[in-house]
Amino acid sequence: MKIHDWPTGPYPARVRIAIAEKNLQSRVQFETVNLRKGAHKKAAFLAKNYSGTLPVLELDDGTFMAECTAITEYLDALDGVPTLTGRTPREKGLIHMMSKRAELELLDAISVYFHHATPGLGPDVEIYQNAEWGFRQRDKALKGMHYFNAILESQPFVAGETFSMADITVIGGLIFAKLVELPVPAECGALHAWYAKMQERPSVKNRVTMSELSGTSD
Amino acid sequence: MKIHDWPTGPYPARVRIAIAEKNLQSRVQFETVNLRKGAHKKAAFLAKNYSGTLPVLELDDGTFMAECTAITEYLDALDGVPTLTGRTPREKGLIHMMSKRAELELLDAISVYFHHATPGLGPDVEIYQNAEWGFRQRDKALKGMHYFNAILESQPFVAGETFSMADITVIGGLIFAKLVELPVPAECGALHAWYAKMQERPSVKNRVTMSELSGTSD
Repeated sequence: MKIHDWPTGPYPARVRIAIAEKNLQSRVQFETVNLRKGAHKKAAFLAKNYSGTLPVLELDDGTFMAECTAITEYLDALDGVPTLTGRTPREKGLIHMMSKRAELELLDAISVYFHHATPGLGPDVEIYQNAEWGFRQRDKALKGMHYFNAILESQPFVAGETFSMADITVIGGLIFAKLVELPVPAECGALHAWYAKMQERPSVKNRVTMSELSGTSD
Repeated sequence: MKIHDWPTGPYPARVRIAIAEKNLQSRVQFETVNLRKGAHKKAAFLAKNYSGTLPVLELDDGTFMAECTAITEYLDALDGVPTLTGRTPREKGLIHMMSKRAELELLDAISVYFHHATPGLGPDVEIYQNAEWGFRQRDKALKGMHYFNAILESQPFVAGETFSMADITVIGGLIFAKLVELPVPAECGALHAWYAKMQERPSVKNRVTMSELSGTSD
Protein backbone atom coordinates (compact mmCIF):
# COMPACT_ATOMS: atom_id res chain seq x y z
CA MET A 1 0.00 0.00 0.00
CA LYS A 2 1.07 3.55 -0.57
CA ILE A 3 0.10 6.68 1.34
CA HIS A 4 0.21 9.98 -0.51
CA ASP A 5 0.70 12.55 2.20
CA TRP A 6 2.70 15.39 3.72
CA PRO A 7 4.71 14.07 6.65
CA THR A 8 3.90 16.79 9.17
CA GLY A 9 0.29 17.48 8.15
CA PRO A 10 -2.50 17.17 10.72
CA TYR A 11 -4.77 15.05 8.52
CA PRO A 12 -1.90 12.79 7.38
CA ALA A 13 -1.11 12.40 11.09
CA ARG A 14 -4.48 10.74 11.61
CA VAL A 15 -3.66 8.00 9.13
CA ARG A 16 -0.04 7.66 10.27
CA ILE A 17 -1.22 7.13 13.83
CA ALA A 18 -3.79 4.56 12.68
CA ILE A 19 -1.11 2.70 10.71
CA ALA A 20 1.15 2.54 13.76
CA GLU A 21 -1.70 1.53 16.08
CA LYS A 22 -2.42 -1.36 13.72
CA ASN A 23 1.27 -2.28 13.31
CA LEU A 24 1.07 -1.87 9.55
CA GLN A 25 4.27 0.17 9.13
CA SER A 26 6.05 -2.53 7.15
CA ARG A 27 3.20 -2.78 4.64
CA VAL A 28 3.04 0.92 3.78
CA GLN A 29 5.19 3.22 1.68
CA PHE A 30 4.86 6.98 1.85
CA GLU A 31 4.98 9.40 -1.04
CA THR A 32 5.15 13.11 -0.32
CA VAL A 33 2.76 15.41 -2.16
CA ASN A 34 4.15 18.93 -2.09
CA LEU A 35 1.49 20.80 -0.20
CA ARG A 36 3.47 24.04 -0.18
CA LYS A 37 3.53 24.04 -3.98
CA GLY A 38 -0.18 23.20 -4.16
CA ALA A 39 0.42 19.82 -5.81
CA HIS A 40 -2.75 18.56 -4.08
CA LYS A 41 -4.85 21.04 -6.08
CA LYS A 42 -3.45 20.10 -9.49
CA ALA A 43 -5.06 17.82 -12.06
CA ALA A 44 -2.73 14.86 -11.51
CA PHE A 45 -3.66 14.67 -7.85
CA LEU A 46 -7.33 15.59 -8.30
CA ALA A 47 -7.66 12.48 -10.46
CA LYS A 48 -6.70 10.50 -7.34
CA ASN A 49 -8.86 12.50 -4.95
CA TYR A 50 -11.56 14.77 -6.35
CA SER A 51 -11.64 16.80 -3.14
CA GLY A 52 -7.95 17.70 -3.39
CA THR A 53 -7.07 16.74 0.17
CA LEU A 54 -4.38 14.65 1.80
CA PRO A 55 -3.85 11.87 2.71
CA VAL A 56 -4.86 9.33 0.09
CA LEU A 57 -4.29 5.59 0.41
CA GLU A 58 -3.41 3.80 -2.80
CA LEU A 59 -4.18 0.09 -2.70
CA ASP A 60 -2.05 -2.44 -4.53
CA ASP A 61 -4.82 -2.85 -7.15
CA GLY A 62 -4.58 0.87 -7.96
CA THR A 63 -7.69 1.95 -6.07
CA PHE A 64 -7.41 5.37 -4.45
CA MET A 65 -9.06 5.80 -1.06
CA ALA A 66 -9.37 9.30 0.38
CA GLU A 67 -10.78 10.68 3.64
CA CYS A 68 -9.18 9.84 6.97
CA THR A 69 -12.25 8.14 8.42
CA ALA A 70 -12.59 5.91 5.37
CA ILE A 71 -8.90 5.00 5.38
CA THR A 72 -9.05 4.26 9.11
CA GLU A 73 -12.08 2.02 8.62
CA TYR A 74 -10.16 0.14 5.92
CA LEU A 75 -6.95 -0.25 7.90
CA ASP A 76 -8.78 -1.21 11.08
CA ALA A 77 -10.74 -3.93 9.32
CA LEU A 78 -7.75 -5.54 7.58
CA ASP A 79 -6.88 -7.95 10.40
CA GLY A 80 -10.48 -8.66 11.32
CA VAL A 81 -9.93 -7.29 14.82
CA PRO A 82 -11.10 -3.67 14.91
CA THR A 83 -9.45 -1.71 17.71
CA LEU A 84 -10.01 1.85 16.48
CA THR A 85 -13.53 1.94 15.03
CA GLY A 86 -15.51 -0.13 17.52
CA ARG A 87 -16.79 -3.67 17.77
CA THR A 88 -20.36 -3.39 19.04
CA PRO A 89 -23.01 -1.28 17.31
CA ARG A 90 -22.92 1.17 20.23
CA GLU A 91 -19.12 1.52 20.10
CA LYS A 92 -19.17 2.01 16.33
CA GLY A 93 -21.84 4.68 16.58
CA LEU A 94 -20.24 6.60 19.43
CA ILE A 95 -16.75 6.48 17.93
CA HIS A 96 -18.03 7.74 14.57
CA MET A 97 -20.06 10.44 16.30
CA MET A 98 -17.16 11.73 18.38
CA SER A 99 -14.72 11.55 15.49
CA LYS A 100 -17.07 13.51 13.26
CA ARG A 101 -17.65 16.00 16.06
CA ALA A 102 -13.87 16.41 16.43
CA GLU A 103 -13.74 17.23 12.72
CA LEU A 104 -16.65 19.67 12.81
CA GLU A 105 -15.84 21.44 16.04
CA LEU A 106 -12.06 21.34 16.03
CA LEU A 107 -9.94 19.97 13.18
CA ASP A 108 -11.93 21.16 10.16
CA ALA A 109 -12.66 24.48 11.87
CA ILE A 110 -8.93 25.09 12.41
CA SER A 111 -8.26 24.08 8.82
CA VAL A 112 -10.71 26.68 7.55
CA TYR A 113 -9.16 29.28 9.86
CA PHE A 114 -5.70 28.43 8.50
CA HIS A 115 -6.68 28.54 4.85
CA HIS A 116 -8.94 31.59 5.09
CA ALA A 117 -7.79 33.90 7.88
CA THR A 118 -4.02 33.38 7.81
CA PRO A 119 -1.61 33.30 4.84
CA GLY A 120 -2.20 29.54 4.83
CA LEU A 121 -0.12 27.82 2.16
CA GLY A 122 0.68 31.13 0.49
CA PRO A 123 -0.94 33.20 -2.27
CA ASP A 124 -0.28 30.72 -5.05
CA VAL A 125 -2.31 28.04 -3.28
CA GLU A 126 -4.88 30.10 -1.36
CA ILE A 127 -6.52 31.60 -4.42
CA TYR A 128 -9.75 32.38 -2.56
CA GLN A 129 -9.95 33.44 1.07
CA ASN A 130 -12.89 34.46 3.23
CA ALA A 131 -11.28 35.88 6.37
CA GLU A 132 -14.54 36.56 8.20
CA TRP A 133 -15.53 32.93 7.84
CA GLY A 134 -12.04 31.86 8.88
CA PHE A 135 -12.09 33.86 12.11
CA ARG A 136 -15.53 32.54 12.90
CA GLN A 137 -14.22 28.99 12.55
CA ARG A 138 -11.26 29.83 14.81
CA ASP A 139 -13.72 30.89 17.52
CA LYS A 140 -15.68 27.68 16.95
CA ALA A 141 -12.50 25.65 17.45
CA LEU A 142 -11.70 27.43 20.72
CA LYS A 143 -15.20 26.61 21.92
CA GLY A 144 -14.64 23.06 20.70
CA MET A 145 -11.56 22.76 22.90
CA HIS A 146 -13.72 23.57 25.91
CA TYR A 147 -16.25 20.98 24.79
CA PHE A 148 -13.65 18.21 24.52
CA ASN A 149 -12.16 19.30 27.81
CA ALA A 150 -15.54 18.78 29.47
CA ILE A 151 -15.84 15.35 27.86
CA LEU A 152 -12.39 14.34 29.11
CA GLU A 153 -13.19 15.50 32.62
CA SER A 154 -15.59 12.58 32.92
CA GLN A 155 -14.02 9.84 30.80
CA PRO A 156 -10.46 8.79 29.90
CA PHE A 157 -10.84 8.82 26.11
CA VAL A 158 -12.82 10.89 23.63
CA ALA A 159 -15.41 8.20 22.87
CA GLY A 160 -15.43 6.50 26.27
CA GLU A 161 -13.28 3.97 28.08
CA THR A 162 -10.85 3.00 25.31
CA PHE A 163 -8.56 4.67 22.79
CA SER A 164 -10.22 4.99 19.36
CA MET A 165 -10.36 6.83 16.04
CA ALA A 166 -12.08 9.67 17.90
CA ASP A 167 -8.94 10.28 19.98
CA ILE A 168 -6.88 10.29 16.81
CA THR A 169 -9.12 12.95 15.28
CA VAL A 170 -8.80 15.20 18.33
CA ILE A 171 -5.03 14.67 18.24
CA GLY A 172 -5.12 15.83 14.60
CA GLY A 173 -7.02 18.90 15.75
CA LEU A 174 -4.46 19.76 18.40
CA ILE A 175 -1.56 19.18 15.99
CA PHE A 176 -3.20 21.71 13.68
CA ALA A 177 -3.89 24.07 16.60
CA LYS A 178 -0.18 24.10 17.40
CA LEU A 179 0.75 24.76 13.75
CA VAL A 180 -1.52 27.82 13.64
CA GLU A 181 -0.49 28.94 17.12
CA LEU A 182 -3.92 28.54 18.61
CA PRO A 183 -3.02 27.24 22.07
CA VAL A 184 -5.38 25.12 24.14
CA PRO A 185 -6.62 27.45 26.90
CA ALA A 186 -4.87 26.88 30.24
CA GLU A 187 -8.18 26.25 31.96
CA CYS A 188 -8.75 23.16 29.80
CA GLY A 189 -6.85 20.98 32.27
CA ALA A 190 -8.41 17.66 31.31
CA LEU A 191 -7.68 18.23 27.61
CA HIS A 192 -4.07 19.15 28.43
CA ALA A 193 -3.64 16.05 30.60
CA TRP A 194 -5.18 13.74 28.01
CA TYR A 195 -2.98 15.22 25.26
CA ALA A 196 0.16 14.72 27.35
CA LYS A 197 -0.84 11.09 27.84
CA MET A 198 -1.44 10.70 24.09
CA GLN A 199 2.10 11.94 23.36
CA GLU A 200 3.42 8.90 25.20
CA ARG A 201 1.87 6.52 22.70
CA PRO A 202 4.52 5.33 20.21
CA SER A 203 1.98 5.75 17.39
CA VAL A 204 1.71 9.45 18.16
CA LYS A 205 5.33 10.06 19.14
CA ASN A 206 6.91 8.45 16.07
CA ARG A 207 4.39 9.36 13.40
CA VAL A 208 6.52 11.85 11.44
CA THR A 209 9.58 9.62 11.21
CA MET A 210 7.47 6.68 10.09
CA SER A 211 8.36 7.03 6.43
CA GLU A 212 11.98 6.28 7.30
CA LEU A 213 10.95 3.05 8.94
CA SER A 214 8.82 1.87 6.08
CA GLY A 215 9.25 1.17 2.42
CA THR A 216 9.88 -2.52 3.01
CA SER A 217 7.55 -4.45 0.80
CA ASP A 218 6.21 -7.66 2.26
CA MET B 1 -35.22 3.84 20.17
CA LYS B 2 -36.26 7.37 19.47
CA ILE B 3 -35.25 9.62 16.59
CA HIS B 4 -35.31 13.37 17.18
CA ASP B 5 -35.79 14.86 13.75
CA TRP B 6 -37.74 17.01 11.34
CA PRO B 7 -39.78 14.77 9.05
CA THR B 8 -38.95 16.45 5.74
CA GLY B 9 -35.33 17.41 6.47
CA PRO B 10 -32.54 16.19 4.15
CA TYR B 11 -30.29 14.94 6.97
CA PRO B 12 -33.17 13.24 8.81
CA ALA B 13 -33.99 11.60 5.47
CA ARG B 14 -30.64 9.82 5.57
CA VAL B 15 -31.49 8.11 8.84
CA ARG B 16 -35.10 7.46 7.89
CA ILE B 17 -33.95 5.70 4.72
CA ALA B 18 -31.40 3.67 6.70
CA ILE B 19 -34.11 2.64 9.18
CA ALA B 20 -36.37 1.45 6.38
CA GLU B 21 -33.53 -0.34 4.56
CA LYS B 22 -32.84 -2.23 7.78
CA ASN B 23 -36.53 -2.92 8.48
CA LEU B 24 -36.32 -1.23 11.86
CA GLN B 25 -39.50 0.87 11.52
CA SER B 26 -41.30 -0.97 14.33
CA ARG B 27 -38.46 -0.34 16.78
CA VAL B 28 -38.27 3.43 16.31
CA GLN B 29 -40.38 6.33 17.47
CA PHE B 30 -40.01 9.80 16.00
CA GLU B 31 -40.10 13.07 17.88
CA THR B 32 -40.22 16.30 15.90
CA VAL B 33 -37.80 19.07 16.85
CA ASN B 34 -39.15 22.37 15.57
CA LEU B 35 -36.47 23.44 13.14
CA ARG B 36 -38.41 26.48 11.99
CA LYS B 37 -38.46 27.81 15.55
CA GLY B 38 -34.77 27.02 16.02
CA ALA B 39 -35.40 24.44 18.76
CA HIS B 40 -32.25 22.62 17.58
CA LYS B 41 -30.11 25.61 18.59
CA LYS B 42 -31.53 25.94 22.11
CA ALA B 43 -29.93 24.66 25.32
CA ALA B 44 -32.31 21.72 25.82
CA PHE B 45 -31.39 20.27 22.45
CA LEU B 46 -27.71 21.23 22.56
CA ALA B 47 -27.41 19.08 25.68
CA LYS B 48 -28.39 16.15 23.44
CA ASN B 49 -26.20 17.15 20.50
CA TYR B 50 -23.48 19.74 21.03
CA SER B 51 -23.38 20.55 17.31
CA GLY B 52 -27.06 21.50 17.23
CA THR B 53 -27.95 19.39 14.22
CA LEU B 54 -30.69 16.90 13.40
CA PRO B 55 -31.24 13.98 13.51
CA VAL B 56 -30.27 12.49 16.87
CA LEU B 57 -30.87 8.88 17.85
CA GLU B 58 -31.78 8.31 21.49
CA LEU B 59 -31.04 4.80 22.68
CA ASP B 60 -33.18 3.08 25.27
CA ASP B 61 -30.42 3.58 27.87
CA GLY B 62 -30.62 7.34 27.37
CA THR B 63 -27.50 7.66 25.19
CA PHE B 64 -27.74 10.30 22.49
CA MET B 65 -26.10 9.53 19.18
CA ALA B 66 -25.74 12.31 16.61
CA GLU B 67 -24.32 12.46 13.07
CA CYS B 68 -25.95 10.52 10.24
CA THR B 69 -22.90 8.40 9.47
CA ALA B 70 -22.58 7.36 13.11
CA ILE B 71 -26.28 6.54 13.40
CA THR B 72 -26.15 4.56 10.16
CA GLU B 73 -23.13 2.58 11.40
CA TYR B 74 -25.08 1.78 14.58
CA LEU B 75 -28.30 0.77 12.86
CA ASP B 76 -26.48 -1.24 10.21
CA ALA B 77 -24.55 -3.22 12.82
CA LEU B 78 -27.56 -4.08 15.00
CA ASP B 79 -28.46 -7.31 13.21
CA GLY B 80 -24.86 -8.35 12.58
CA VAL B 81 -25.42 -8.27 8.83
CA PRO B 82 -24.21 -4.92 7.49
CA THR B 83 -25.84 -4.03 4.18
CA LEU B 84 -25.23 -0.28 4.09
CA THR B 85 -21.70 0.28 5.43
CA GLY B 86 -19.77 -2.56 3.81
CA ARG B 87 -18.51 -5.98 4.82
CA THR B 88 -14.94 -6.21 3.53
CA PRO B 89 -12.26 -3.64 4.43
CA ARG B 90 -12.33 -2.36 0.85
CA GLU B 91 -16.12 -1.96 0.84
CA LYS B 92 -16.08 -0.18 4.19
CA GLY B 93 -13.38 2.21 3.05
CA LEU B 94 -14.94 3.04 -0.30
CA ILE B 95 -18.43 3.49 1.13
CA HIS B 96 -17.13 5.82 3.85
CA MET B 97 -15.08 7.73 1.30
CA MET B 98 -17.95 8.25 -1.10
CA SER B 99 -20.41 9.11 1.67
CA LYS B 100 -18.02 11.70 3.09
CA ARG B 101 -17.43 13.04 -0.42
CA ALA B 102 -21.18 13.35 -0.89
CA GLU B 103 -21.30 15.41 2.29
CA LEU B 104 -18.37 17.63 1.37
CA GLU B 105 -19.17 18.18 -2.27
CA LEU B 106 -22.96 18.14 -2.24
CA LEU B 107 -25.08 17.87 0.91
CA ASP B 108 -23.07 20.02 3.33
CA ALA B 109 -22.29 22.52 0.58
CA ILE B 110 -26.02 22.95 -0.15
CA SER B 111 -26.70 23.26 3.56
CA VAL B 112 -24.21 26.12 3.86
CA TYR B 113 -25.74 27.76 0.79
CA PHE B 114 -29.22 27.47 2.34
CA HIS B 115 -28.21 28.84 5.74
CA HIS B 116 -25.91 31.58 4.46
CA ALA B 117 -27.03 32.80 1.04
CA THR B 118 -30.82 32.39 1.27
CA PRO B 119 -33.24 33.37 4.07
CA GLY B 120 -32.69 29.82 5.39
CA LEU B 121 -34.79 29.16 8.49
CA GLY B 122 -35.55 32.87 8.91
CA PRO B 123 -33.90 35.73 10.78
CA ASP B 124 -34.58 34.39 14.26
CA VAL B 125 -32.58 31.22 13.52
CA GLU B 126 -30.00 32.49 11.03
CA ILE B 127 -28.32 34.94 13.37
CA TYR B 128 -25.08 34.96 11.37
CA GLN B 129 -24.87 34.70 7.60
CA ASN B 130 -21.92 34.88 5.23
CA ALA B 131 -23.52 35.15 1.79
CA GLU B 132 -20.27 35.11 -0.16
CA TRP B 133 -19.31 31.80 1.44
CA GLY B 134 -22.81 30.49 0.83
CA PHE B 135 -22.75 31.24 -2.90
CA ARG B 136 -19.32 29.70 -3.16
CA GLN B 137 -20.69 26.50 -1.62
CA ARG B 138 -23.63 26.54 -4.05
CA ASP B 139 -21.16 26.57 -6.93
CA LYS B 140 -19.24 23.72 -5.30
CA ALA B 141 -22.45 21.69 -5.06
CA LEU B 142 -23.23 22.24 -8.74
CA LYS B 143 -19.74 21.00 -9.57
CA GLY B 144 -20.35 18.09 -7.20
CA MET B 145 -23.45 17.10 -9.19
CA HIS B 146 -21.26 16.78 -12.29
CA TYR B 147 -18.76 14.70 -10.32
CA PHE B 148 -21.39 12.23 -9.12
CA ASN B 149 -22.89 12.14 -12.59
CA ALA B 150 -19.51 11.03 -13.96
CA ILE B 151 -19.26 8.36 -11.25
CA LEU B 152 -22.73 7.04 -12.09
CA GLU B 153 -21.90 6.88 -15.77
CA SER B 154 -19.54 4.01 -15.04
CA GLN B 155 -21.14 2.19 -12.09
CA PRO B 156 -24.71 1.57 -10.91
CA PHE B 157 -24.34 2.91 -7.36
CA VAL B 158 -22.33 5.70 -5.75
CA ALA B 159 -19.77 3.41 -4.08
CA GLY B 160 -19.77 0.63 -6.67
CA GLU B 161 -21.94 -2.35 -7.51
CA THR B 162 -24.38 -2.27 -4.58
CA PHE B 163 -26.64 0.20 -2.80
CA SER B 164 -24.99 1.68 0.30
CA MET B 165 -24.82 4.54 2.78
CA ALA B 166 -23.08 6.55 0.06
CA ASP B 167 -26.20 6.43 -2.12
CA ILE B 168 -28.26 7.57 0.86
CA THR B 169 -25.99 10.57 1.37
CA VAL B 170 -26.27 11.63 -2.27
CA ILE B 171 -30.06 11.20 -2.01
CA GLY B 172 -29.94 13.55 1.00
CA GLY B 173 -28.02 16.01 -1.14
CA LEU B 174 -30.57 15.92 -3.94
CA ILE B 175 -33.46 16.26 -1.48
CA PHE B 176 -31.80 19.42 -0.18
CA ALA B 177 -31.09 20.59 -3.74
CA LYS B 178 -34.79 20.39 -4.51
CA LEU B 179 -35.71 22.30 -1.32
CA VAL B 180 -33.40 25.17 -2.26
CA GLU B 181 -34.42 25.03 -5.94
CA LEU B 182 -30.98 24.08 -7.18
CA PRO B 183 -31.92 21.68 -9.97
CA VAL B 184 -29.60 18.95 -11.18
CA PRO B 185 -28.33 20.16 -14.58
CA ALA B 186 -30.09 18.49 -17.52
CA GLU B 187 -26.79 17.25 -18.92
CA CYS B 188 -26.26 15.09 -15.81
CA GLY B 189 -28.19 12.23 -17.36
CA ALA B 190 -26.67 9.43 -15.30
CA LEU B 191 -27.38 11.26 -12.04
CA HIS B 192 -30.98 11.88 -13.13
CA ALA B 193 -31.45 8.23 -14.11
CA TRP B 194 -29.93 6.93 -10.85
CA TYR B 195 -32.12 9.30 -8.80
CA ALA B 196 -35.26 8.15 -10.59
CA LYS B 197 -34.31 4.56 -9.78
CA MET B 198 -33.69 5.48 -6.14
CA GLN B 199 -37.20 6.94 -5.90
CA GLU B 200 -38.58 3.48 -6.57
CA ARG B 201 -37.05 2.08 -3.39
CA PRO B 202 -39.72 1.88 -0.66
CA SER B 203 -37.17 3.22 1.86
CA VAL B 204 -36.85 6.42 -0.15
CA LYS B 205 -40.46 6.69 -1.28
CA ASN B 206 -42.05 6.28 2.14
CA ARG B 207 -39.52 8.01 4.35
CA VAL B 208 -41.62 11.04 5.31
CA THR B 209 -44.71 9.08 6.30
CA MET B 210 -42.63 6.66 8.36
CA SER B 211 -43.51 8.26 11.68
CA GLU B 212 -47.15 7.29 11.11
CA LEU B 213 -46.15 3.68 10.62
CA SER B 214 -44.03 3.46 13.73
CA GLY B 215 -44.43 3.98 17.40
CA THR B 216 -45.20 0.32 17.99
CA SER B 217 -42.86 -0.96 20.65
CA ASP B 218 -41.65 -4.50 20.21
